[in-house]
Amino acid sequence: MEKTTPVRPDRPRRGRRPAGSDTRAAIERAAREQFGELGYRRTTVRGVARAAGVDPRLVRHYHGSKRDLFVSTMRLPIEPEAMLDHVFADGPGSAGERLARVLIGVLGDADSEQIMTGLIRAAASEPEAAEAVRQLLAVKVLTPLARRVGGPAPELRASLMASQIVGLGMARNVVGLPALLGAPREQLISAVAPVLDHYLSGTWLEAASD
Amino acid sequence: MEKTTPVRPDRPRRGRRPAGSDTRAAIERAAREQFGELGYRRTTVRGVARAAGVDPRLVRHYHGSKRDLFVSTMRLPIEPEAMLDHVFADGPGSAGERLARVLIGVLGDADSEQIMTGLIRAAASEPEAAEAVRQLLAVKVLTPLARRVGGPAPELRASLMASQIVGLGMARNVVGLPALLGAPREQLISAVAPVLDHYLSGTWLEAASD
Repeated sequence: MEKTTPVRPDRPRRGRRPAGSDTRAAIERAAREQFGELGYRRTTVRGVARAAGVDPRLVRHYHGSKRDLFVSTMRLPIEPEAMLDHVFADGPGSAGERLARVLIGVLGDADSEQIMTGLIRAAASEPEAAEAVRQLLAVKVLTPLARRVGGPAPELRASLMASQIVGLGMARNVVGLPALLGAPREQLISAVAPVLDHYLSGTWLEAASD
Repeated sequence: MEKTTPVRPDRPRRGRRPAGSDTRAAIERAAREQFGELGYRRTTVRGVARAAGVDPRLVRHYHGSKRDLFVSTMRLPIEPEAMLDHVFADGPGSAGERLARVLIGVLGDADSEQIMTGLIRAAASEPEAAEAVRQLLAVKVLTPLARRVGGPAPELRASLMASQIVGLGMARNVVGLPALLGAPREQLISAVAPVLDHYLSGTWLEAASD
């Protein structure tokens, strides 16, 4: 899935600098690593450029400010629409387990885990980045999820699902609670799937209005 | 509940500086505010001293390094043993709802919320502080909770409960998802209580071994 179109086709400058897709990929990889490991605050355009082996001006040329660099490189661990298609493929009855399986897979895969913990670290460390993460989540995850959830209070149900997903990422991968790191994959899925189904079902909406 | 015993009774220095419980309380309040608002990284002993209106040397005298200041001032939002006594007072059957009620209360109370988000921010922003938070949680919350939980895999069940608690604090108060901020208190309790009961019950432990 390499992009072969140069970013500024009006000024290709061929031969002067290998500023093609490999360089862009190296910058994006370095940015994700540094945002993930250092958090938003301590990541710098200069540090990312150094790690990618390019001039800082090239990073600014492609990505603009640090915030722009964050928003453009901090992808979600999985493409949300395709993931949601998969999760809801057999209706809401199996959505909790499918989503739990995707989530536990993300937390156990080094690359995806780095993206997820990077987002959590950023959201927690910096109001500016928290706002960017909130927007990213709202547009790319919560709105598409709420649309599929349907029924009453879909945003609340989607947001509660998100709270458990983020909480597991935080407790297992950021704080590193040993019992969660040591638990077998299938055990975590069995524990978390009914919770996602519970939030999805919205049966508790009636209980609250008693 | 003011401490009236001076910290170093061997050198009271009465009259020279009002370094009694009021000054200590002012330092602790300033530290909690700054760790909560700025996170671990950007909080400095100097900044805390300025906010408390005292000399930085006094902060170091009472609390030592920034890390010591963090560990000694970052209390938990509630005293865990008393909270757990209350939560399990009528047996495990009502523990989920009682715990959910305490949690939603904490997230809606300005002082407690500041302590909780301060811990979350710190854990996410700094490996050194994450380790301190992990120890604080392990000793003060997870071990006492696991002891009351009993049965098989008590640490895992306690840690999963913690994941939902932390996740709600993160999604509602740190990231600020609007649906969670806008939901009525009783609705959130109805949604979250069965989840805490589910993790507490451990019924999913059997499902995983099928």
